[in-house]
Amino acid sequence: MGHRAAIVGAGHTRFGVLDAGPRELLRTATRAAFESVDRGVEGREVGELFLTTIGFGGWQIGNVAAVLAEETGVVGVPTSRIENACASGGFGLRAAVRSVESGAADLALVVGLEKMTDLASPRRRYWLGVSGDTEWERAAGLTFAGVYGLIASRYLAEHGVGREALAEVAVKNHANGARNPNAQFQKVVARETVLGAPRVADPLGLYDCCPVSDGAAAVLVARAELARKYTDSPVYIDGVGAGSDHLAVQERPELTRFAASRRAADEALRSAGVDRSAISFLEVHDCFTIAELLAIEDLGFAAPGEAARLTLEGATRPDGRLPVNPDGGLKAKGHPIGATGVSQAYEAFLQLRGAAGPRQIPGAALALLHNVGGAGATAAVTICSGG
Amino acid sequence: MGHRAAIVGAGHTRFGVLDAGPRELLRTATRAAFESVDRGVEGREVGELFLTTIGFGGWQIGNVAAVLAEETGVVGVPTSRIENACASGGFGLRAAVRSVESGAADLALVVGLEKMTDLASPRRRYWLGVSGDTEWERAAGLTFAGVYGLIASRYLAEHGVGREALAEVAVKNHANGARNPNAQFQKVVARETVLGAPRVADPLGLYDCCPVSDGAAAVLVARAELARKYTDSPVYIDGVGAGSDHLAVQERPELTRFAASRRAADEALRSAGVDRSAISFLEVHDCFTIAELLAIEDLGFAAPGEAARLTLEGATRPDGRLPVNPDGGLKAKGHPIGATGVSQAYEAFLQLRGAAGPRQIPGAALALLHNVGGAGATAAVTICSGG
Repeated sequence: MGHRAAIVGAGHTRFGVLDAGPRELLRTATRAAFESVDRGVEGREVGELFLTTIGFGGWQIGNVAAVLAEETGVVGVPTSRIENACASGGFGLRAAVRSVESGAADLALVVGLEKMTDLASPRRRYWLGVSGDTEWERAAGLTFAGVYGLIASRYLAEHGVGREALAEVAVKNHANGARNPNAQFQKVVARETVLGAPRVADPLGLYDCCPVSDGAAAVLVARAELARKYTDSPVYIDGVGAGSDHLAVQERPELTRFAASRRAADEALRSAGVDRSAISFLEVHDCFTIAELLAIEDLGFAAPGEAARLTLEGATRPDGRLPVNPDGGLKAKGHPIGATGVSQAYEAFLQLRGAAGPRQIPGAALALLHNVGGAGATAAVTICSGG
Repeated sequence: MGHRAAIVGAGHTRFGVLDAGPRELLRTATRAAFESVDRGVEGREVGELFLTTIGFGGWQIGNVAAVLAEETGVVGVPTSRIENACASGGFGLRAAVRSVESGAADLALVVGLEKMTDLASPRRRYWLGVSGDTEWERAAGLTFAGVYGLIASRYLAEHGVGREALAEVAVKNHANGARNPNAQFQKVVARETVLGAPRVADPLGLYDCCPVSDGAAAVLVARAELARKYTDSPVYIDGVGAGSDHLAVQERPELTRFAASRRAADEALRSAGVDRSAISFLEVHDCFTIAELLAIEDLGFAAPGEAARLTLEGATRPDGRLPVNPDGGLKAKGHPIGATGVSQAYEAFLQLRGAAGPRQIPGAALALLHNVGGAGATAAVTICSGG
């Protein structure tokens, strides 16, 4: 169906427990994105800005998009915050595509950011909880690990699958993270370590949960026709899709499928005119190991229950037939909430230019990026292709 | 330049100290918008949702756009939160225009919401403060009234104007609010009452400040070509514009002009192909009386210092040559933060259809809506015309 926009530059901080504050994280990711543009770019070429963050900890909850304009050196241009919890980044990409498609800007900047680790544990739980349903879940004491633990229990029971399938997601993503210099965890873990770790929310153990992370990621999105002004190797955005669901999981007809992901994927693939069989790799929202299995199924790459088998067979490893999360995913790379969706686009930018180094997927040509808000209440999907 | 989108329905709750919680406010405004559509509309015709709120008080800070999908009965469709502090609503309108222009949706719903009055005063100050600069202003104890007090002091000194000009803004907007059944304050006040009221932040007194308010407003934005499917009297959106500025006022070259408003107005008028002389009335962001004077000047309707004279002459009254805030403005109508920009579009919907009742501006044909975030760090302007 043609290209809708082009990523012409991308930057990324390390994800992890960082000394840098939120302004420094924004600045570092943005500068890296500018510096990555092959033929160079001036700040004044950027016509619109999008900041995706939940403003974790409350350092600057309101009007924080103005901070991005300051740190980018383009004070004056339109700047907006898009917030859909952990899916903020994916929705920010979508907004940037519309900005350049509408002609409002020739070049838009999307930066995702979160600074999470400088809060003590009770405040951190509060700020994590506010992305899930407040009235029926958070106020009743249900954490995200608790919600995903319920979902995982149901999945394992429904499909007669053991915890090994979950563990294999962690093992694979840790192995991938070990090849990503920006990942929070750059170490391999053994399946026994994962299975033997303390339980967080049964059946999920410590290694089934993504960490709490600081970090930022930035991408420069140009009008498709202008891509080659900036680089000979643009990465195109060919399709975007989004969906929603009831905020509280109790309102949904089934626990083990996220309708929002399904709808977002269908829309994105249809708008790109792309078949699932053509996709080279997936970046999915594995906030918990169970979430990666759900994603593979909801996105239409496996029947219900089949993602567990695919994973145990090794099909989702970098050398498998459907690589998933080559950058380590949320599990090993880390999950600075508002940054995650933008970080997925950063990985697509590297992989589809053949610039992913030791974690390069040979011949990667089409990527599907999948970003989820809360426990599936919002989802965004982006289809990217190499230039 | 042609119509970019059409408002085909609009709804509004009363603004004020309300018993209703945030979900009920959302639902009430949305239902009213649906019921206002002359030829009727089904929920399933809505293709995308935008919720504009700062999530005051933290009832549901993250992923709150999913609540809008639930309350609108269209769970499944893309829903996003756009947050730019007090300018959220204006940026939400702009996002809805892009949604229908891009063909993603035929009909989009924008709902602005805030529930502010159920917090005790210290928490309320915190939640108001988070929309201004945190590092240099809020953390140092500077409130919004404090910032606007500094700006007002400077304005009065620069232009040799007395507090009477500020007071006249309050008197006029209270008189307008008295004709608006949704206004928080529906009573006229005398200039002596305004001038004699307790000082809040010199030179601003109690009547120079907008109140703390609960409320919601909703508009249905259709593709321009589809407008007449819904009504014979659509209100078109012909131009949108936005701008940004340094978050902290100390970083700006001058205190008494908001560059973001200037840029937003220039872009909106240019994109609409409309001359200032053709504008029938303004809806401006009068969070404090001084802000209305700045707005009239920044938007290009008066030279620096001249807005005070225009106001004292009565030019901005409903029967003057440039009516400003016929609905009572933030000052008298109330200012539920995320709802304000959408509420301005509601007023345009009434006025430009000749349906504003006792506050109707005769012959109103073109409206300029102006929405500011924080003390001018973000601004959005929308140009509307009658069908």
